[in-house]
Amino acid sequence: MSEKVLSIDKTTVQMLDKAKKDGVETAWDRKEILKASCGFGLAGVCCRNCTMGPCRVSPVPGKGAERGICGATADVIVSRNFARMVAAGAAAHADHGRSIVLELLHTSPDGAIKVKDEKKLKKVASRFGIETEGKDVYDIAHELAQAGLNDFGRQYGSITLPPTVPAKRKETWEKLGIVPRGFDREVVAIMHSTHVGCMADAEEMLRMSMRCALADGWLGSYMATELSDIMFGTPHSRPTEASLGVLEDNQVNIVLHGHEPSLSEMIVQAAEMPEMIELAKSQGADGINLCGMCCTANEATMRHGVKLAGNFMQQELAVITGAVEALVVDVQCIMPALAKLATNYHTKFITTSPKAHITGSTHIEMDEEKPLETAVGIVKEAIMNFKNRDKSKVVIPNVKTKAEVGYSTEEILNKLDGVVNSQIGPMQSAKPLADVIVAGVIRGAAGVVGCNNPKTVHDEGHLEVIKGLIKNDIIVVVTGCAAQAAAKAGLLTKEAKELCGPGLKKVCELVDIPPVLHMGSCVDISRILELVGTTANHLGVDISDLPVVGIAPEYMSEKAISIGTYVVSSGIDTWLGVVPPVTGGPAVVDFLTNKIEEWVGAKFFVEPDPHKTVEQIVERINEKRKKIGI
Amino acid sequence: MSEKVLSIDKTTVQMLDKAKKDGVETAWDRKEILKASCGFGLAGVCCRNCTMGPCRVSPVPGKGAERGICGATADVIVSRNFARMVAAGAAAHADHGRSIVLELLHTSPDGAIKVKDEKKLKKVASRFGIETEGKDVYDIAHELAQAGLNDFGRQYGSITLPPTVPAKRKETWEKLGIVPRGFDREVVAIMHSTHVGCMADAEEMLRMSMRCALADGWLGSYMATELSDIMFGTPHSRPTEASLGVLEDNQVNIVLHGHEPSLSEMIVQAAEMPEMIELAKSQGADGINLCGMCCTANEATMRHGVKLAGNFMQQELAVITGAVEALVVDVQCIMPALAKLATNYHTKFITTSPKAHITGSTHIEMDEEKPLETAVGIVKEAIMNFKNRDKSKVVIPNVKTKAEVGYSTEEILNKLDGVVNSQIGPMQSAKPLADVIVAGVIRGAAGVVGCNNPKTVHDEGHLEVIKGLIKNDIIVVVTGCAAQAAAKAGLLTKEAKELCGPGLKKVCELVDIPPVLHMGSCVDISRILELVGTTANHLGVDISDLPVVGIAPEYMSEKAISIGTYVVSSGIDTWLGVVPPVTGGPAVVDFLTNKIEEWVGAKFFVEPDPHKTVEQIVERINEKRKKIGI
Repeated sequence: MSEKVLSIDKTTVQMLDKAKKDGVETAWDRKEILKASCGFGLAGVCCRNCTMGPCRVSPVPGKGAERGICGATADVIVSRNFARMVAAGAAAHADHGRSIVLELLHTSPDGAIKVKDEKKLKKVASRFGIETEGKDVYDIAHELAQAGLNDFGRQYGSITLPPTVPAKRKETWEKLGIVPRGFDREVVAIMHSTHVGCMADAEEMLRMSMRCALADGWLGSYMATELSDIMFGTPHSRPTEASLGVLEDNQVNIVLHGHEPSLSEMIVQAAEMPEMIELAKSQGADGINLCGMCCTANEATMRHGVKLAGNFMQQELAVITGAVEALVVDVQCIMPALAKLATNYHTKFITTSPKAHITGSTHIEMDEEKPLETAVGIVKEAIMNFKNRDKSKVVIPNVKTKAEVGYSTEEILNKLDGVVNSQIGPMQSAKPLADVIVAGVIRGAAGVVGCNNPKTVHDEGHLEVIKGLIKNDIIVVVTGCAAQAAAKAGLLTKEAKELCGPGLKKVCELVDIPPVLHMGSCVDISRILELVGTTANHLGVDISDLPVVGIAPEYMSEKAISIGTYVVSSGIDTWLGVVPPVTGGPAVVDFLTNKIEEWVGAKFFVEPDPHKTVEQIVERINEKRKKIGI
Repeated sequence: MSEKVLSIDKTTVQMLDKAKKDGVETAWDRKEILKASCGFGLAGVCCRNCTMGPCRVSPVPGKGAERGICGATADVIVSRNFARMVAAGAAAHADHGRSIVLELLHTSPDGAIKVKDEKKLKKVASRFGIETEGKDVYDIAHELAQAGLNDFGRQYGSITLPPTVPAKRKETWEKLGIVPRGFDREVVAIMHSTHVGCMADAEEMLRMSMRCALADGWLGSYMATELSDIMFGTPHSRPTEASLGVLEDNQVNIVLHGHEPSLSEMIVQAAEMPEMIELAKSQGADGINLCGMCCTANEATMRHGVKLAGNFMQQELAVITGAVEALVVDVQCIMPALAKLATNYHTKFITTSPKAHITGSTHIEMDEEKPLETAVGIVKEAIMNFKNRDKSKVVIPNVKTKAEVGYSTEEILNKLDGVVNSQIGPMQSAKPLADVIVAGVIRGAAGVVGCNNPKTVHDEGHLEVIKGLIKNDIIVVVTGCAAQAAAKAGLLTKEAKELCGPGLKKVCELVDIPPVLHMGSCVDISRILELVGTTANHLGVDISDLPVVGIAPEYMSEKAISIGTYVVSSGIDTWLGVVPPVTGGPAVVDFLTNKIEEWVGAKFFVEPDPHKTVEQIVERINEKRKKIGI
């Protein structure tokens, strides 16, 4: 491998060095082996949607083949490929959301999964028009679940939008014909319209993508978050630690990886059982050490303070420490490489979802009827594997960073409202947040989100953008792998106020919060929508009027494409740090980075340089402030 | 263009010659310009499911990069790409089916769309457990529509399988976990599981594909056919004509192209209105000549004898005749190239579906509330365009072939039962069909289906396979572009018995049918399922026990991949004449062409040579006959 800098995370560099010594392969190695990516694919102009091709049209207008065999132009091909990415990303969130709704349907007072936040249950139920007065909590829960499922499977009419969507925004969507008609249906609609011989108009294809993406943001992800809170508790701020150094030398290390909170909730319950801890001790361990990776980590840390081992590009490195007894996964962003890698160490690589079998894993399927029993079985597997740890192969980086996590919308508004250590309950007022923004004490707000991508230096994009923003008095909320990057770098601490501009620093001191707030997993970007919508409604403006932005400096997943699309469609300018595969379609590029603003008041910016990204954001936010006269 | 043979259809060769003289481009030209297809894409080993890549792994095991950046192997990548093709194909049929079901929901005694076949309505309603006794026809229709929509959007449980699925077959599916849980949900499930970091096990991915495809065959397509029959009439045999020569010299030529029957039904009604015919005459035309292209043609000819202008690769050629006033399309298999091509002639290229906008077309969206009014508007556009026809540019091939179309399952069983010119009603007995097969008078039955593909000589695969089969006493049913190939070649006539083996010839004479039966559009492959299932149930065997096969000699669409997968999963061996993009995944190839037989009693055969295809089929059918002792 070349000696270029791959990551600015020191534990990553250390573990990559160990990988080399251990003779094992990581994603960075595979990237080297694959050499350059295909230029047609990168530009989005390769079409494989029928077997007449594949057709690769020229990514440069006026040069080479301009049309596929059917006559599809570069713009048509690019727009269809983009739409399919949105469909896949939205589908991932639809399925995640559906799992959560089905779990709510199966809650019972004596089941493994109960209703934990009754207030939130009632609040969400009422937005679906469900009567809650004097009704049994579980009856409400089951009715709510049914209402949610109706929207997932809806065949006519349109989905139930939450009241946090400002009236103006809804009008805009209605005018554009992009109010989603049912979640699953929107995904199917895209798959149909991208079939050979259907939609061949880039703008109309992108319009459909926006409608599907909105179903992701305001239904699938939104309900996933709300219902997770109802069942597992609405998060409030709590301390944790981050970095690969959270693995423990003499404990049974279990790393939870994937996305849905249900698995981790059950494993947390199981790992806390006295008999499990006893079993661990009987095997010579001091105890059980639960850590998280990727979004599962975010879910579990928000509600239980589970430590953050790392983000997407570090999943293999956890195994390479030699100290992980079990790597337990459910769905999404799980490298299939883990199966082969784990055979070089003692780590048990355990898959649990019928949606994500991985060849070479130990598959212990989560029994939906008895989830806790399954979790106990998994924890036992980990414990009994402790004796197989080869100490000569163990290197745990000597780094741990303190972090504060758990900033749900409720918690943020509570804190700003001066309600310290509050009971989480009905939404607090957005007035204080709106006030500090209007007053200019805080210039604006930014959501830094998304994955890692080996096309960028690991974590660098996230951190440089975040640091640049808080320096400019822009408060930052983080989710996903961006959140872990921030946590590892110490940005999720109150001490990080020292890196802020004077206004934001003052707010952090007054309210006693970090300048970078951990809002959860990727699905929890719905929390950002909720916060922004609430603020806009408080001010009586549209979301696109607010000085808020979204940034995905290192994204790689199709979910991120769907998220970016619903964020922009919701009126929030979005910066992408990795060039999406659309450059071969000039009309598509123009639409996404320009014309879409006429439609929804926001657009995409593509900027790989994090420092330029910050400059552009500050400029754009200043413009927005001027526009609404604040 | 090279001088190699592109088509065995003479009108096609003639029109390609005219295209060259006119200086216009066709799909064959674009294929030449694009040169060779990408080898990675052809082998299915190119992954674009996240933005870390695209990753192209080696299609040859042990040579070059073996894994994508995430660690996905060739087999994983190939299986995911295959699954997405199935999802897209199934989605196309889901959406088509959904449109039909929604139309049934909106039928009314005084609306443009009424219930035409009450007997079929009641039969289908009862299979959904709907009480029909003494109930208003439209109440039954609306209840049935609601039941159908429930299955499209179903979130738990499983879909309603028709009673034509033999009990053994259902058991097999249940054991394999491939009974579909809801149509839209299965498409979404595939899009989720193919997302980065989910399913990474080729066999499990293919299992999911089978489940999704079954939803296509036994729900989406099945209901589309049943409900179309209910609203527009169950087809019975009738004469028509085929070939580009069906265009008329001094009539307003309207070519209907696409898939859903609703558009064509409305246009047929409109074109038959006396005031429209008067208007045409006022413009100097002798009348209005309605012709069909692709599956819309099949739908309209089955019910109205609308003439068949041609199949997929001929859609551009219709315009090139210079004699088409309007080419009216809805969804699927419509070349976007038509928009540009039409500007070289006077032809109006009219798109009508919100699912398929095409840049450069005249978009007249079908008003669901007033479909007939929209159709009248479209017919008027065509008529008023007659005066713009440039006679110097008109060349209509001097070829027309007689054909008999309209063999619904009901019609086939009626005919075999000796019920001539029957009232179409409840399903007749499958006994006579079973008897002739068991007796060996007919060796077996074959469905020849699917598209055209410029990778093969146009129509040659269809015709050589069909001729080879009937010569071997294998009765043939046809749908889709295969049906038009057969029609143009005169195989849909009673005279074609002369090309048959002695057994089949005798049956054709006795029953007075052609040896090749036109069963409709691609969606109508569900009629084949119905016929085969009925016969299996009559004999008390499983579908896989029957000497029946499916062949798609020239397929190109993702729908065909979905169809092939549900046909095999239903227990019917399927031959593909075009190599699907799976060759880079050895485990996938082995599964589809070998191991899947252990699961479902049938498998895929890939054979580009039509003569070898026939040999293999005869051998396989003989084996099957021996196995069940007939």
